[in-house]
Amino acid sequence: TQQFRITLLPGDGIGPEITAVAVDVLKAVGTKLGIQFDFTEAPIGGCAIDATGNPLPDETLATCRQSDAVLLAAIGGYKWDTLPRAQRPETGLLGLRSGLQLFANLRPATILPQLIDASSLKRDIIEGVDIMVVRELTGGIYFGQPRGIFDANGDQRGVNTLAYTGSEIDRIGRVAFEAAKKRQGRLCSVDKANVLEVSQLWRDRITALAADYSDVELSHMYVDNAAMQLLRWPKQFDTIVTGNLFGDILSDAAAMLTGSIGMLPSASLGSSGPGVFEPVHGSAPDIAGQDKANPLAQVLSAAMMLRYGLNQPAAADMIETAVDAVLNQGYRTGDIMADGMQAVGCKAMGDVLLQAL
Amino acid sequence: TQQFRITLLPGDGIGPEITAVAVDVLKAVGTKLGIQFDFTEAPIGGCAIDATGNPLPDETLATCRQSDAVLLAAIGGYKWDTLPRAQRPETGLLGLRSGLQLFANLRPATILPQLIDASSLKRDIIEGVDIMVVRELTGGIYFGQPRGIFDANGDQRGVNTLAYTGSEIDRIGRVAFEAAKKRQGRLCSVDKANVLEVSQLWRDRITALAADYSDVELSHMYVDNAAMQLLRWPKQFDTIVTGNLFGDILSDAAAMLTGSIGMLPSASLGSSGPGVFEPVHGSAPDIAGQDKANPLAQVLSAAMMLRYGLNQPAAADMIETAVDAVLNQGYRTGDIMADGMQAVGCKAMGDVLLQAL
Ligand SMILES: CC(C)[C@H](C(=O)O)[C@@H](O)C(=O)O
Ligand SMILES: CC(C)[C@H](C(=O)O)[C@@H](O)C(=O)O
Repeated sequence: TQQFRITLLPGDGIGPEITAVAVDVLKAVGTKLGIQFDFTEAPIGGCAIDATGNPLPDETLATCRQSDAVLLAAIGGYKWDTLPRAQRPETGLLGLRSGLQLFANLRPATILPQLIDASSLKRDIIEGVDIMVVRELTGGIYFGQPRGIFDANGDQRGVNTLAYTGSEIDRIGRVAFEAAKKRQGRLCSVDKANVLEVSQLWRDRITALAADYSDVELSHMYVDNAAMQLLRWPKQFDTIVTGNLFGDILSDAAAMLTGSIGMLPSASLGSSGPGVFEPVHGSAPDIAGQDKANPLAQVLSAAMMLRYGLNQPAAADMIETAVDAVLNQGYRTGDIMADGMQAVGCKAMGDVLLQAL
Repeated sequence: TQQFRITLLPGDGIGPEITAVAVDVLKAVGTKLGIQFDFTEAPIGGCAIDATGNPLPDETLATCRQSDAVLLAAIGGYKWDTLPRAQRPETGLLGLRSGLQLFANLRPATILPQLIDASSLKRDIIEGVDIMVVRELTGGIYFGQPRGIFDANGDQRGVNTLAYTGSEIDRIGRVAFEAAKKRQGRLCSVDKANVLEVSQLWRDRITALAADYSDVELSHMYVDNAAMQLLRWPKQFDTIVTGNLFGDILSDAAAMLTGSIGMLPSASLGSSGPGVFEPVHGSAPDIAGQDKANPLAQVLSAAMMLRYGLNQPAAADMIETAVDAVLNQGYRTGDIMADGMQAVGCKAMGDVLLQAL
């Protein structure tokens, strides 16, 4: 039997309850396929602040580094929103990304036929949408120096720096071309090259890479236009590659096109070392601990972990098939509930998943 | 009779044809209401590059400065897309904004009941949407220094700087609070304060301003969430205020919610001096000179000019009523054509507008 060390980072809000479901599903799949998971839990975000004062304790990062993959749930909540930035849950997340050098963030936005009516877009616009946003995750304006709030002649001046090197762009570009190759073969690079020098460099480097990927059709789009095109005719997109900030905005927009972000997983990968797999949705503090959360994005994140982090495609398929089955059987948590469907809570959704397996 | 000096900047692509319609409409309204417009035309963008090598010739900026308001159409086209940035049409536009210190960009996104089916969003989601995006236009990452592409240990490094001073934030904040006051009294400030120091300063300053506007309800939203919420439930928004780059992205997304960006005007204002009024759409080089363009956004920009630039609300009302009338009569250009409507070209749309006046 194969053996994998998995670090669980349940985090805050609904994180622990959805993680519990994902762990049960992983165990069940492991038993079937002869894979053994050794789970180690560690604190991150608000719960880590409460316990240690630090949103990313050194031991948490060390535990992650020693594992084969990290399954993260969600961090943050009202309680920590007014703390200084260095002590905020988000800072722990950013520290995890840079600490593990997770430069490539893969965010699929896929319409599930069973949930098509959840979208705010018309059926013919949204039907069949299947977009992969490849977001650079450890560079750009999130991490650029100098940064801060400074005194300037009696006024205040806030400064952040957007910076990318050519090799950072090439690195994420290659991940995106490879992803596009395995998908429909179309890659759209999003930038603001008509205004920003960084985007000009971005466009030049991505364009140069295209020579190595003759089977991928490359296009370029300005970010403002991309935001429009995503909601005008999303089917025009296959794979999108973009920087950290634009990727933050566009991947969330793409996710919301589906109308059911409680269903969407994501993967953050480095060139070596463990990847981090997590749902796109947040920690939903308002429903935490009430057994109302939708665990499916977390379960699908576990599937992404098996596929992209542990190279276990059969196990990933098994989980995705089970999710498809419970949706076909009509089971729905509150966030995706619709007429004629069977309402279930978080735990019950886990139970029907286990049955489907 | 009142007299106003108007600088016309028809620019590129469909610019000249839609400007011609707007000028006819302004003249007709002027005759009715005893307003005389002295029009001076000047080159900007691609046509200015072709004529002078400069996308914003000094004389153009001087002419604008000497006028009471500027009516701009659209700039750019494939032809100039590969020039170095300093000689690109967009650079002329950015120079105009900074040259006239147009720090406040007002971009309404309003659903016209006659065109509701043009939206890619479901009717119940989009019906009645009326959003005003107030975008800071002369600061932020568009203009921050240092910027450029530099050598860095044998690698290239692109750098742009996002910077805002407290007084720049206050200045745009006050415009936004005033706008919200005249609308539904709700202002949503959009930033990325969980990651960027500039946004932290933005949030602090906007929050402090709120004390002066007790009749406006202020909220804050992260930009990624705003991109989601705009397409999930756009009716939650009344007035949005944000920085230059976020405003570029979100105002385009908000505009596209309507499905008919050929209908949307915008205003760019400074603290004194002439404002610039222009449609949200671009220069549409593919249909230029074919009498296919929709002139209504340009005509509505002229109305915005009358309202916000020249303090002539009666004249603005008259134009807006005429646009409403021709839509009710069923006239449609190609971009907004629908079953059972009367297809017209750009000029014919101008003719029916004049009849409606
Ligand atoms: C929480 C925040 C720092 C984070 C980001 O901006 O990257 C989140 O929005 C995300 O997209 O994962
Ligand atoms: C043409 C471009 C420089 C401009 C901008 O980014 O501001 C445009 O997108 C706009 O929104 O007016």
